[in-house]
Amino acid sequence: MFQALKEASKARESREVPIGAVIVKDNKIIARGFNKCIALSDPTAHAEIVALRKAAKKLKNYRLNDCYAYATIEPCLMCAGALAKARIKKIIFGAFDKKADCYKNILKTGDIKKLSRRLVIVGKKEKHLSAECANIIKDFFKKIRQQKA
Amino acid sequence: MFQALKEASKARESREVPIGAVIVKDNKIIARGFNKCIALSDPTAHAEIVALRKAAKKLKNYRLNDCYAYATIEPCLMCAGALAKARIKKIIFGAFDKKADCYKNILKTGDIKKLSRRLVIVGKKEKHLSAECANIIKDFFKKIRQQKA
Repeated sequence: MFQALKEASKARESREVPIGAVIVKDNKIIARGFNKCIALSDPTAHAEIVALRKAAKKLKNYRLNDCYAYATIEPCLMCAGALAKARIKKIIFGAFDKKADCYKNILKTGDIKKLSRRLVIVGKKEKHLSAECANIIKDFFKKIRQQKA
Repeated sequence: MFQALKEASKARESREVPIGAVIVKDNKIIARGFNKCIALSDPTAHAEIVALRKAAKKLKNYRLNDCYAYATIEPCLMCAGALAKARIKKIIFGAFDKKADCYKNILKTGDIKKLSRRLVIVGKKEKHLSAECANIIKDFFKKIRQQKA
């Protein structure tokens, strides 16, 4: 998660919403990603999707069996769907995103569980640098609000 | 929708699941896409996402305000999320996807409605070549099953 957080800080440096993700296979990081929506003019360029696409390219397979995803924030609807489609084994995220509420609202819904296949979202407070993952975003938006004021 | 269906047949020619999509702005098609997951080793390369990324690149904006998306099949969790994030005004799809059931299960859920913002999914039978959109996929999988048997 520390590595995902490092990615998030790269996003902050480029003035994108600071979210980072890494994809792990056999205990090794095979791909990294941070939010690049504005830089790439790409609404799908969330950290998780950027990392996912890199990992699939690397493995030359659109199915990422036996891979784990670490993301600083609870994935949104699009990212959760993408991670499920890619057959990611488990997603570990740092902090919950109350606005998206994907974990609570979507993935626990009975019928959607089928869709999510082997997808399990885990967000444990202390273990996954939860506070750091949340704070980097909070501080980012706080600064933007201050600049606007 | 006829144009989206044309895209779907391109996917079929490349032996990908035959789904197609187009993005429309000011009554003009600004981007087209068909399923390229296998060809690109990219789990996110669904028709809708391919078209969405092209459209955003063209408009040099990750927000596709005042754009409409036409897809041959009901979008999956990932695509629905992506279209919502991109602020697509309306999605018109040809045939329902009973397996994904995104429309019924996700977008009608109260809390998720907020997420979907101005996203409205419409699938009207006769008007949107529904049978053709469904049949191209059915025939594709039927052939695959026959080849395996």
